[in-house]
Amino acid sequence: MTVLERSGGLGGLWRYPEPAGPGPAYRSLHLNTSAKITGYGDFPMPADFPRYPRHDQMASYLQRYADHKGVTDLVELNCEVVSLSRAADHTWLVTTRDRTGAQHHRRFGHVVVATGHHWSPRLPSFPGDETFPGRRLHSFDYSDPVGHTGRRVVVVGFGNSAADISVELSRVAARTVLVQRRGVHVVPKTMLGIPIDEIASAPWWARLTFPEQRRLIETLLRLMRGRLADYGLAEPDHRIFGGALTISDELLSRINHGALVVKPAIERIENSVVHFTDGTGEAADDLVYCTGYRIEFPFLPFEWVFEPAGRVALYQRVVSLAQPDLYFAGLIRPFGAITRLVQAQAEWIADLVEGVAELPPPSVMRREVDAHLKAADARYGPSAADSVQVDFGTYLAALRRQRRPSVLTTRRG
Amino acid sequence: MTVLERSGGLGGLWRYPEPAGPGPAYRSLHLNTSAKITGYGDFPMPADFPRYPRHDQMASYLQRYADHKGVTDLVELNCEVVSLSRAADHTWLVTTRDRTGAQHHRRFGHVVVATGHHWSPRLPSFPGDETFPGRRLHSFDYSDPVGHTGRRVVVVGFGNSAADISVELSRVAARTVLVQRRGVHVVPKTMLGIPIDEIASAPWWARLTFPEQRRLIETLLRLMRGRLADYGLAEPDHRIFGGALTISDELLSRINHGALVVKPAIERIENSVVHFTDGTGEAADDLVYCTGYRIEFPFLPFEWVFEPAGRVALYQRVVSLAQPDLYFAGLIRPFGAITRLVQAQAEWIADLVEGVAELPPPSVMRREVDAHLKAADARYGPSAADSVQVDFGTYLAALRRQRRPSVLTTRRG
Repeated sequence: MTVLERSGGLGGLWRYPEPAGPGPAYRSLHLNTSAKITGYGDFPMPADFPRYPRHDQMASYLQRYADHKGVTDLVELNCEVVSLSRAADHTWLVTTRDRTGAQHHRRFGHVVVATGHHWSPRLPSFPGDETFPGRRLHSFDYSDPVGHTGRRVVVVGFGNSAADISVELSRVAARTVLVQRRGVHVVPKTMLGIPIDEIASAPWWARLTFPEQRRLIETLLRLMRGRLADYGLAEPDHRIFGGALTISDELLSRINHGALVVKPAIERIENSVVHFTDGTGEAADDLVYCTGYRIEFPFLPFEWVFEPAGRVALYQRVVSLAQPDLYFAGLIRPFGAITRLVQAQAEWIADLVEGVAELPPPSVMRREVDAHLKAADARYGPSAADSVQVDFGTYLAALRRQRRPSVLTTRRG
Repeated sequence: MTVLERSGGLGGLWRYPEPAGPGPAYRSLHLNTSAKITGYGDFPMPADFPRYPRHDQMASYLQRYADHKGVTDLVELNCEVVSLSRAADHTWLVTTRDRTGAQHHRRFGHVVVATGHHWSPRLPSFPGDETFPGRRLHSFDYSDPVGHTGRRVVVVGFGNSAADISVELSRVAARTVLVQRRGVHVVPKTMLGIPIDEIASAPWWARLTFPEQRRLIETLLRLMRGRLADYGLAEPDHRIFGGALTISDELLSRINHGALVVKPAIERIENSVVHFTDGTGEAADDLVYCTGYRIEFPFLPFEWVFEPAGRVALYQRVVSLAQPDLYFAGLIRPFGAITRLVQAQAEWIADLVEGVAELPPPSVMRREVDAHLKAADARYGPSAADSVQVDFGTYLAALRRQRRPSVLTTRRG
């Protein structure tokens, strides 16, 4: 086995500062999921880690996990995959580029793509944004608030990065405006004193029906923070778990303190003034786009991963329909910690590679993908990003079923 | 009427930076009570104020309130009261010092002392603290976290200032340790999306009995943040409202992120190492004492305000037993906003001065003070600071009764 890693070390997006340049992490970044649940089952995080470890703790933990599993020596660092194609003998031909720019070709029997989806910044464009004289950056280029001290900053977006970054900017900037295009549920990291990902993986949680789970969380949120409209925020057009959540312990409090001003969508930009759809405008020195990332695989054909509309169309979010021996690990966005789900994906992939598990016929795989996308559409709307959204418990159970297909076929008739 | 003000402007502790030197405010200070409840009933805070205004907003609001009431021209700034004594004709002799150091004497018929209780820093001493080579400061001298960047800081105390200051230090310091001597209830600024002081002054709250109020808040806290022990904090030895609260939206979250480390009481200091009663030690560069303030009136005899053990012993927290035409405004620490309570005190004092209201006989006043101190002892323990603790609704009702004593005597038999 060989692991081809583009960067100079292990730890992925948790490596910060990324020596090679910008990255999705920022100086204040902590996990949004708890140490207990985020740690791999067979290699718990150290007991002295806090409930929500910081980026460097997570990076060092991942490095130690690789050591523990004996994987570290199999990793080729500074090795970028340029293309992936089928050789005549049906093996995989992988073209890589090393640090000197030299290209190399090698063959593999199986390929697992684990490149993540936080490296290709998505940058929106607005009418007139070319007239903006100030600084514009994406959260990918953001590292800490210091450079924005005393400036007027408009943060575009309302996801987790937007929450973290706008909150910390609000402590040093002259004015911090947060642009919220549509209503999103804002959820604290803990409820009942329990990390929400611990709740989501608790046995008692799994025994509740989805409507019961939703009602419980809605009730707790109502008790904890009232209505989002109490903070001048747009109310979501969907109930909780009907779209990505924004997780923040501090966002609503900063709004209550007048330190964060929330505005609706940007209509246009006119020199240094950002105009919003409510007719108001804000003079800004800096624009920080926390507008997320595109899911991209420049080294392989689009149709191996996506359906034509751009939604990810992999069997169980793992197996390419076009190339059923091409696997994707970690191409999910869970309500809960991702690590154990990726571990379950990896165990299944290993079973498939070893022939212990088998894929169903192509028509069954196609039907599963269609059903998944249809359900995602019904729940979230037909956005490409939401095609990778999964529920922790449901998805884990689905992966486990894949590893014992015959047993389950029998049992479920 | 004349207002003698030691500083160079109106706004009291909300003036920051205090041009004359240090003060209890710090750069990030916001009200812990809401604009709606903290604003005077006859002069609401501006509609564009946030729920929790910042120090400068509060200071400018107070200045505008003085203008609105026509008081501004009656204020003599930079005028320090040196002593207060009885003249032979029973009027009050007030000795003041101006900016040049020159002393002046004047006479007044009535005196209201409104000097507050946040100006005389209380500094604890620990065995060996003279060996500490680093910086030591009180929150009174603290202004912002910048000077502590990259340093190891031990914050002593667990009140509101300790919470605010340790939280912001935790974002820039190399390590931030918070010393908690005894368990204190930590409460967020809002519950149910409602500022807690709005809850405490709501009609529905007043209709609940004290045990019902306590049970409601305990239940909400349990749902919102679990047990304090979940954060490694000492559980209080009293139920909620049985002692001062620490109000913070961010403290518990910072502990969850490992950014704040909590330790029990300091046992001794040995050079740069602070030793705690649990046997652990922490190397520190800076010690920040957030240990509160002494209640002091250097310009008048101790026994006019205090009983021998140092507890404040004023009839209804306002009237000196020894000098019943000497009044104290604002010498209270309420569960809720202080402004309207001080306004009610002021209205009563005005009635007394004008002869519209009358004080009861000395024996009745003495009994009220004794009963108050006995109740405070039973509820909080016999600490001097807790002798000024009042419940918002109960105290407001008591003051209002004072303004109509005959009616109430009749009605209550």
